[in-house]
Amino acid sequence: MSSHADRLAALREQLKSDRLDGFVVPLTDEHMSEYVGSYAQRLAWLTGFEGSAGSAVVLPEAAAIFTDGRYTLQVRQQVDGAHWSFQSVPDTSIASWLKEHAPEGARIGYDPWLHRRDWVRQAAAALAARGATLVPVERNPIDRIWGDRPEPSKASLVVHPERFAGRSSADKRQTVADWLAGNKADAAVLAALDSIAWTFNVRGTDVSHTPVALAYALVHSDGTADLFVAGEKVTPELRAHLGNGVRLHDRAAFEEALGELKDKTVAVDPERSVAAIFEALDKAGANIVELRDPTVLPRAIKNEAELAGQRAAQSRDGAAIARFLKWVDETDELDELKASDRLEAIRREDPSLKDLSFDSISGFGPNGAIVHYRSSEKTNLKFEPGSLYLIDSGGQYEDGTTDITRTVAIGEPSQEMRERFTRVLQGHIAIDTAVFPKGTRGGQLDSFARRPLWEAGLDYAHGTGHGVGSFLSVHEGPQRIAPVGGAYAGGDEPLAAGMILSNEPGYYKAGDYGIRIENLVLVVPVEVEGAEKEMLGFETLTFAPIDRRLISAEMLSDKERRWVDNYHAEVVRRIGPSLGAAERGWLEAACAPL
Amino acid sequence: MSSHADRLAALREQLKSDRLDGFVVPLTDEHMSEYVGSYAQRLAWLTGFEGSAGSAVVLPEAAAIFTDGRYTLQVRQQVDGAHWSFQSVPDTSIASWLKEHAPEGARIGYDPWLHRRDWVRQAAAALAARGATLVPVERNPIDRIWGDRPEPSKASLVVHPERFAGRSSADKRQTVADWLAGNKADAAVLAALDSIAWTFNVRGTDVSHTPVALAYALVHSDGTADLFVAGEKVTPELRAHLGNGVRLHDRAAFEEALGELKDKTVAVDPERSVAAIFEALDKAGANIVELRDPTVLPRAIKNEAELAGQRAAQSRDGAAIARFLKWVDETDELDELKASDRLEAIRREDPSLKDLSFDSISGFGPNGAIVHYRSSEKTNLKFEPGSLYLIDSGGQYEDGTTDITRTVAIGEPSQEMRERFTRVLQGHIAIDTAVFPKGTRGGQLDSFARRPLWEAGLDYAHGTGHGVGSFLSVHEGPQRIAPVGGAYAGGDEPLAAGMILSNEPGYYKAGDYGIRIENLVLVVPVEVEGAEKEMLGFETLTFAPIDRRLISAEMLSDKERRWVDNYHAEVVRRIGPSLGAAERGWLEAACAPL
Repeated sequence: MSSHADRLAALREQLKSDRLDGFVVPLTDEHMSEYVGSYAQRLAWLTGFEGSAGSAVVLPEAAAIFTDGRYTLQVRQQVDGAHWSFQSVPDTSIASWLKEHAPEGARIGYDPWLHRRDWVRQAAAALAARGATLVPVERNPIDRIWGDRPEPSKASLVVHPERFAGRSSADKRQTVADWLAGNKADAAVLAALDSIAWTFNVRGTDVSHTPVALAYALVHSDGTADLFVAGEKVTPELRAHLGNGVRLHDRAAFEEALGELKDKTVAVDPERSVAAIFEALDKAGANIVELRDPTVLPRAIKNEAELAGQRAAQSRDGAAIARFLKWVDETDELDELKASDRLEAIRREDPSLKDLSFDSISGFGPNGAIVHYRSSEKTNLKFEPGSLYLIDSGGQYEDGTTDITRTVAIGEPSQEMRERFTRVLQGHIAIDTAVFPKGTRGGQLDSFARRPLWEAGLDYAHGTGHGVGSFLSVHEGPQRIAPVGGAYAGGDEPLAAGMILSNEPGYYKAGDYGIRIENLVLVVPVEVEGAEKEMLGFETLTFAPIDRRLISAEMLSDKERRWVDNYHAEVVRRIGPSLGAAERGWLEAACAPL
Repeated sequence: MSSHADRLAALREQLKSDRLDGFVVPLTDEHMSEYVGSYAQRLAWLTGFEGSAGSAVVLPEAAAIFTDGRYTLQVRQQVDGAHWSFQSVPDTSIASWLKEHAPEGARIGYDPWLHRRDWVRQAAAALAARGATLVPVERNPIDRIWGDRPEPSKASLVVHPERFAGRSSADKRQTVADWLAGNKADAAVLAALDSIAWTFNVRGTDVSHTPVALAYALVHSDGTADLFVAGEKVTPELRAHLGNGVRLHDRAAFEEALGELKDKTVAVDPERSVAAIFEALDKAGANIVELRDPTVLPRAIKNEAELAGQRAAQSRDGAAIARFLKWVDETDELDELKASDRLEAIRREDPSLKDLSFDSISGFGPNGAIVHYRSSEKTNLKFEPGSLYLIDSGGQYEDGTTDITRTVAIGEPSQEMRERFTRVLQGHIAIDTAVFPKGTRGGQLDSFARRPLWEAGLDYAHGTGHGVGSFLSVHEGPQRIAPVGGAYAGGDEPLAAGMILSNEPGYYKAGDYGIRIENLVLVVPVEVEGAEKEMLGFETLTFAPIDRRLISAEMLSDKERRWVDNYHAEVVRRIGPSLGAAERGWLEAACAPL
């Protein structure tokens, strides 16, 4: 196995023979996925960085890796600073870094199947200031030198039953067809894997933690579709499920199919489609209209069947969490890996669990302060009394996707820990109880969660909430509770009844401990007496105890205290019946009124 | 005097002879001003609409007037629906309306001195979809038919003394020069009138309510400048004040001067400069860099002299308001015009008052529910017991600009009025007491003001706060407390210590009554014990009683009640000493603890 230094040297050699002076390495796939298959883990292979977001640029004399605030520590642990300079976004960007460091007149390569067109335009403009050019490559130079690169998954697609999906694929395709008619377009490109999974009511296992399959699709104005997926992944059951309205093609035939859309008006989502798709359509002489993928909103707004599934999955998941928290309370000699293994084992007792929805964040003490921490043999900490344990985890169940964070006291917590936990809880309650007019954007709610921390001069460096799919992506757009114009897109999306979001304020004391309290919430209509507008609010979906030992009840208003007691009563009501007697006893004590 | 119908017919005739099929009529001037001189009131002359924001389009067979939610009622009262269709923004826009209504292949005229380049591009693209074109006019066709069009003001410029400005003009120009050096540019175009007034420490009376003079300027990288202003407006005092570093030219010579900037790198603010400026620079072969006007931030962040002036002006203005409120309390047979005349008379007793900072909004009962109401003989309402009176007003003092709204009970208010007033007050307090990390944008605070209303299913259809100048614009950018992505720009600007904002939540019950409570606040650093970040908060600048008869004290938290009592104690302390004995007695009663 070659070292990362060897790989960097090999890439530079390859670039030389490709007549390139540099190359840009993003962490995504041809579908702009957040989580990617191992075949697309080029950034990790090249640099050693294992975070979920980042990118790199290699020049003859310099190489830089770009990560955001979540990975400031991790990137320095995993990547060799002798060969790589560490750059943090959004302070800098690949484009601005290249503007400064690219040799005059350089040819910088990029893989058009791994970048948005906007990025290509911006980077090309930045390079132009140096007399340099951005050059699309025919084949990714990393793939040429990555000897043992894994192949894309060959796993079969499976049917997602209508009892969970709530609508047939034909019905969903008709929705897209109606939308195409309204926009006077002939076809829509679906490139995002969750859009395809949702539209065709199929699931896959090609990407870890997100139950999607590698595919492309074109949906036409007559409601039929072309689905591009490797032939070996197609079973007779799938073929029967898709029916006559869906023509199957090999995934490799997608680019060619785009080439046949001459004079057609084709809707393409510039956020969810790579530059190569636009290039192929331009070359074909298609008339491109840039519009948001028409499945994004109907997917975000859950139907009754999806909500019933979500509530059921949440109850089972909450019971698993309760059993786990009892075990944590009662077990000596714990460590981060032992704990997350145990939680996974408890979750896996449920046959409807298909996968975890992401790598659990199991962080004790100082590791809890690393927002996107992933424990390993190297970093694994033993639990010691007098600190906090943070566990952020979730499951992909066939009827719903869960995501929950609990922070628990190990031994006797300090007064400061309790005070800050209580502030985080106050922020959490402020979101959960928010009532707001229809049309309000998630970004307008974000500060409610921060105010109790701001009052003490504290904050957290992440958004407050993200959308969640139905047995799909645990981070699903378009909605988000986060400041507009900050690091995360989506804060400007109006919230609509049926959307699911996480509610997860936190506080992180670097080198000491971390706190996060996360439930999922559902946007619901709210009846307010005398209201002059249609009002919305949240229904809590997640039910598991919040550690009472960490709550300073005297800091809470009457209303906040009532919220905690009512929430805990509901936890007992919802998950108590599925627990054994001993577990139920523990739960009732954990949920006793403040 | 011709009717508005005659004027519309005359414009259509004029367009025909100009070989145009339509024309766009914005409400602005060549400086993108919010308030414009009477010579630029083309929209009002053509349509009769007297609101402060709007635009119109005239086609051979159709004419439309575009206003925002503030003017939904007013535009229908003032403009003849038989000739004009009413369009509301942002639901529609001129570009989208033209896309639908412009005749195929039409030539639609626009005055390039009255539009931003962005607007020109968007409208041209929208028209292209109809095979139509957007055509710049040499001379505005309205000016040709407007027989008695006023001339631009000939008033002299006056020097704004350094004891109020806090910095010399040479020093400010050096700031611009340093900024030019940092941006590798040779010159900056200043087109916004308040930018010019600030940079040169001059004031004028060319625009009602904003003490600016019609002018353009070029500031160069050596700190010298060219100022373009009508010669008749230049006094010897002004010439002496400006000194050798400022070359004076006629305002009409500005376009020609732009033509001489061949190969120069010129910074132009696309938000604050009209399309014609870009066209002239393009034609000259200048290298344009689009950057925000470099005076915007230094103007928004007030210096110590400006803050001292602001605090002094606020005390005098608060005393005037208190005297006025006492008079309202004690006077029978009041009406809206009588009241606003009285307030103006009281303010004018102060010789440092140069102008009102805007037309007072003096609204009784149902008129108080019209957010940008302006009382007239036609609409003037007599005060009757059992309702509310809303007075939003301000002064342009030589040492500061004020803006304050108070809502007072006339007779016995209803329980509902008190409850809603209290909710507005709670929102006001939530902004006033906010503590937030440096870097927080105004938009992140906006919802604090709305939450108490949202909880009752209520809201208000305007922003929560705007920036305010120092003896300059009462609406001064760039900062604002308003949802990002809504009708108002500026919610995404980070708040910085030294910025002044209004804090003015409200509630409006159409046809019944309106409530608004407005103070100005100053962004200041806040010391929080144990804070991990630099924190900011607000210092209240405005001091005048808030009507205790409208406060339901039992709805307030202890903290809110303390805020009211402390605020009122400070009102007495600040403005009491300047009042006579009877007035002081009234003030002390009005400011008694809850």
